[in-house]
Amino acid sequence: MKTKNLQQHAPLFMGIDGGGSHCRVMIQDEQGKTLGQGKGGPANPVYGVQQCKDSIIKATRDALHEAGLDDNAMTRLVVGGGLAGLHLPQMQEQMQAWQHPFAALYLTTDLHAAALGAHQGMDGGVIILGTGFSSLAACKGKLTQVGGYGFPINATCSGAWFGLEAVKAVLLDADGVGLSTSLTQALLETRCATELAEAFMHATATDYAKLAPLVFEQADVGDKVSLGLIQQGAAFINQVIRRLLACGVTRLAMIGGITERIKPWLDPQLVMTVGPALASPQQGAILFAQQSHKQMNKSKEQR
Amino acid sequence: MKTKNLQQHAPLFMGIDGGGSHCRVMIQDEQGKTLGQGKGGPANPVYGVQQCKDSIIKATRDALHEAGLDDNAMTRLVVGGGLAGLHLPQMQEQMQAWQHPFAALYLTTDLHAAALGAHQGMDGGVIILGTGFSSLAACKGKLTQVGGYGFPINATCSGAWFGLEAVKAVLLDADGVGLSTSLTQALLETRCATELAEAFMHATATDYAKLAPLVFEQADVGDKVSLGLIQQGAAFINQVIRRLLACGVTRLAMIGGITERIKPWLDPQLVMTVGPALASPQQGAILFAQQSHKQMNKSKEQR
Repeated sequence: MKTKNLQQHAPLFMGIDGGGSHCRVMIQDEQGKTLGQGKGGPANPVYGVQQCKDSIIKATRDALHEAGLDDNAMTRLVVGGGLAGLHLPQMQEQMQAWQHPFAALYLTTDLHAAALGAHQGMDGGVIILGTGFSSLAACKGKLTQVGGYGFPINATCSGAWFGLEAVKAVLLDADGVGLSTSLTQALLETRCATELAEAFMHATATDYAKLAPLVFEQADVGDKVSLGLIQQGAAFINQVIRRLLACGVTRLAMIGGITERIKPWLDPQLVMTVGPALASPQQGAILFAQQSHKQMNKSKEQR
Repeated sequence: MKTKNLQQHAPLFMGIDGGGSHCRVMIQDEQGKTLGQGKGGPANPVYGVQQCKDSIIKATRDALHEAGLDDNAMTRLVVGGGLAGLHLPQMQEQMQAWQHPFAALYLTTDLHAAALGAHQGMDGGVIILGTGFSSLAACKGKLTQVGGYGFPINATCSGAWFGLEAVKAVLLDADGVGLSTSLTQALLETRCATELAEAFMHATATDYAKLAPLVFEQADVGDKVSLGLIQQGAAFINQVIRRLLACGVTRLAMIGGITERIKPWLDPQLVMTVGPALASPQQGAILFAQQSHKQMNKSKEQR
């Protein structure tokens, strides 16, 4: 009876990887056994704090369901949240103020969680190329962040950047003041330029990022404008890799939806430094939750 | 007594030139005598329909005040409004639904009003380079619009574009992955890169446009990044001028806050086709109000 009670009340750990297009969560027991995973909508608080919270709750419910647990089990979850946009003090404040339903919630950036996962705590760099762009080098206890300031001010080679540049190119082509591109046929197949502009009038980074695959598709069939964008994006990522290596790291991981698409375009010498991530950002977020929870309990004991 | 009554009830004409940073209005009597002028805040409905209406009302009050009239005189105003963003059907609908306080309100684009003013109804082209970019060629009854789809999807060489590109350049420089630029000292004098990013997190075109003068200032003292942006912007406007001339117009006018700054950088051969505007966009908007009002009264008489 005692054992059963203990099991029922044993803490469970959950890691969140939250980005501009969706968030993924993973629940593990104390032994590191994965019990369930879940997926939710956009979870970058910059583009909506409430939406970010809703997406996390939705993904958590899915993961609990997969684990055979009901919503009440949320109170057992010790959560590590690695969220895009969380390097911004405003966003940290707003997310810290959340009256969340978990046992505990420890927040950090998606970048930090990704680095923890990718190198399992060892020195290394990480580049996230999804909806947005950000990167980090962790070397001898020093963290150096490059990028991650958000879209549209700092997003070269990200999904959102490819999408925005595609829309820009199409509108110039349609007006006869830009290079001819097959992106135009693709985006104006069922609408005129004004309708395209209206559709993107209040578009978010997530909306733009949906167009990124199209740019790679059109490059594959020889579209010069698409090729030019990819080359521009790749040149930037080469620069970023050099910058991270200059911090002293020797091992890099690249993650996010654009990664596999852009890799063939990068400098082969630099790509040699990019290895597979040892574990997922969700796993890194769990690691962060465990480390933070341990430290928190320790400081409680000391009081 | 009768004469005085007539004067009190004689219609007055007002023209509005509404853009992303501010709006300007001008009130004239039936004889074309200017009675007052006023200025208000941003009046591009894409960035806020309510703000656009508020800005117009504020500017109208100022102009009435200058004309020695009180707010009640709004009901005497036959208004022509040339507003940025009004080529978009959604914006037309929302602005047409306005329960405005005027005798009549006839809406068109800022571009159309500018062209009417610049060429007094004659054939010609007009380029607006203010917060945003748009252009129009009116030739033999045919209107060809180039650009004007809005920021950030279609704004090269506009104030907002210069501002956004400046912020982008500064963040890359600060991270050590971009060209060195004196824009960095200028923008990060009192804050770090993250604070700059936070300040522009939800920035509008109007916010970005405020940085445009800085780019021209830094170019003047030899900053290569600023020079590069200006050359890129100028190359685009050269292309636009060629496109408008290809429509058959021989006379162009350029208006908006960026115009005088960019002109020295344009192809001198092309600049030769750019002459002074015969009258202001507000005057063009009054012309539009008068033409529209005449037509409306005519169709009323026919019913």
